[in-house]
Amino acid sequence: MVRETSEEELLAAIFPLLPTGEATLVGPGDDAAVVGAPDGRFVVSTDVLVERRHFRPEWSTGYDVGWRAAMQNLADVAAMGARPTALVVSLVIPGHLPVEWVTGLARGLAAACAPSGAAVVGGDLSSGDDVVVAVTVHGDLGGRAPVLRSGARVSDVVAHAGRRGWSAAGLALLDHDLGTADQELVDAYLRPEPPLGAGPAAADAGATAMLDLSDGLLRDAGRVARASGVGIDLDLAAFAGDLARLGAAAAAVRAVSGERPAGEWPAADVSATEVSAAGQDAALARDWVLTGGEDHGLLATFPAGTVLPEPFRAVGRVVDGRRSGDPGGPGAAVTVDGIAPRAHGVGWDHFRG
Amino acid sequence: MVRETSEEELLAAIFPLLPTGEATLVGPGDDAAVVGAPDGRFVVSTDVLVERRHFRPEWSTGYDVGWRAAMQNLADVAAMGARPTALVVSLVIPGHLPVEWVTGLARGLAAACAPSGAAVVGGDLSSGDDVVVAVTVHGDLGGRAPVLRSGARVSDVVAHAGRRGWSAAGLALLDHDLGTADQELVDAYLRPEPPLGAGPAAADAGATAMLDLSDGLLRDAGRVARASGVGIDLDLAAFAGDLARLGAAAAAVRAVSGERPAGEWPAADVSATEVSAAGQDAALARDWVLTGGEDHGLLATFPAGTVLPEPFRAVGRVVDGRRSGDPGGPGAAVTVDGIAPRAHGVGWDHFRG
Repeated sequence: MVRETSEEELLAAIFPLLPTGEATLVGPGDDAAVVGAPDGRFVVSTDVLVERRHFRPEWSTGYDVGWRAAMQNLADVAAMGARPTALVVSLVIPGHLPVEWVTGLARGLAAACAPSGAAVVGGDLSSGDDVVVAVTVHGDLGGRAPVLRSGARVSDVVAHAGRRGWSAAGLALLDHDLGTADQELVDAYLRPEPPLGAGPAAADAGATAMLDLSDGLLRDAGRVARASGVGIDLDLAAFAGDLARLGAAAAAVRAVSGERPAGEWPAADVSATEVSAAGQDAALARDWVLTGGEDHGLLATFPAGTVLPEPFRAVGRVVDGRRSGDPGGPGAAVTVDGIAPRAHGVGWDHFRG
Repeated sequence: MVRETSEEELLAAIFPLLPTGEATLVGPGDDAAVVGAPDGRFVVSTDVLVERRHFRPEWSTGYDVGWRAAMQNLADVAAMGARPTALVVSLVIPGHLPVEWVTGLARGLAAACAPSGAAVVGGDLSSGDDVVVAVTVHGDLGGRAPVLRSGARVSDVVAHAGRRGWSAAGLALLDHDLGTADQELVDAYLRPEPPLGAGPAAADAGATAMLDLSDGLLRDAGRVARASGVGIDLDLAAFAGDLARLGAAAAAVRAVSGERPAGEWPAADVSATEVSAAGQDAALARDWVLTGGEDHGLLATFPAGTVLPEPFRAVGRVVDGRRSGDPGGPGAAVTVDGIAPRAHGVGWDHFRG
């Protein structure tokens, strides 16, 4: 257990496992690290994971938590059009935690960072009742202009790279004791694989706006819409592959729970077929695609006619925000096939139920 | 209370309070911030504060916690010889926390950052049972070589800038319900004021090694000694001002607690006079100066003959580590007036009692 170990012994066990990178000029062990910023600017973002809020110890290993903590941060850097260079990690752990959990976390961080060459250059350790992992990630723009949320223009193509709804489906499976039914979806929740290279590729291709989808497609698309002063109309058929992939999981969850889907779908579209079991399964899969969080795919807008870089595909278009839906509610500037989703319950909020 | 507020409302209350700075190219509100790094490198460090581990809610206001979270990080950047440019903050808060606590934290961050012109450029919010504040700070070296812990050389002068033992004394006063006896010492604990400008000044003056004293003089001097492969001999008389300042507080704490000092002082030096009350008061003040943490003063080494930049003053010299004390234990390469302190209980460890 951690409490049977000194802080220095624990750090000595962790340090050799941490990923190293070319941008590191001074690594862990001093008051601060020094990281190269050849662009003359650096991109920085921070995200925190809290036990029982963002992960459950009975589902996620230390490795899984390290992987997720890194990936959700790396995706934020990618969403600016940058390549990740360095991370620092603040870790709060209870004394009863096995040392192997902590070294597993370091291995998960390292595995998630490996493809992009980002290093862990520093950190801090503290004891606490619950595990808290706060990661700060840095990236280099390589001369690119940062791609903000505010640059979408009417008539731009809306494009998406990555999986949609897989993480929410995996979480729902675990939540209903169906984790063994579809390991790939469970893994998509435990260890998301955002398309990090797509971020700089989008910037190079002229993306006008971009963000990481952490809180759900409708909610995050709404953020681009509001920041840019536009509307976004999504084309549900563009997610046919994800919808088909999630159908069986939706049926399995519904068979166990008997729950109706959360009803994020436009009320006007709840037709007679929705009453059927198959219709409700499809509606649940649709909820996951439209509102499920934590896949960390990238949503970007490009001038019409842009040849989209792989793996982006067109999923909608930017429209005049004044004509799309109710301007008052969250996500109101976002429509799906021209219809406004209900203005409540879209995505989630940490403090409200 | 925080739980009666949405995350977006809370962020909207915090954002206007956060400090801004010249290095900020893209501030809070997007996936990531963009910060200027004119030096082509940046310095980065992270530190975490946990409720009941690093502060007590009954003693520290949100403002105090924000101040301390910023200052202990800013001191790490200063200790590399850099000037702070930007911070990001991950904040975990329970739903019952007053919104004013959180806005107070933002004001404390801002006040601590104001003199150095550092900005808060991003953050993340989560709910959790205990308050956790993880700050990552960035700085610019302005062309200076970073001052590491490993550069001290035999015959260098050891110098210190800042207060010694004030924070530990303030904490001891609070801990014995004596907080009203000496507000200046209590304030030194609640809102430390490290000499941030002394860091870059030391680098400019040719400092060979430097660190921020967060865990106590003996323990942190031991880190420089080990990293540099040298010994450090400290001159207790150099801290006469701090010792005199802390005498009354030591007497007040001893009168209430009846405790003997923790005994960090070299065993050989516990003479007959130590048995007297006045002697024990003096020994407690000496413990605070030698082992008290969290003043965040700077300890640096300079080539002999260097004109020390203000407010550094000479407090010892670098000696051959092979001849000073027991090379096995923590702090063993550090002596005080030529005598090795006991090799146990120096500073503290988060996980061991």
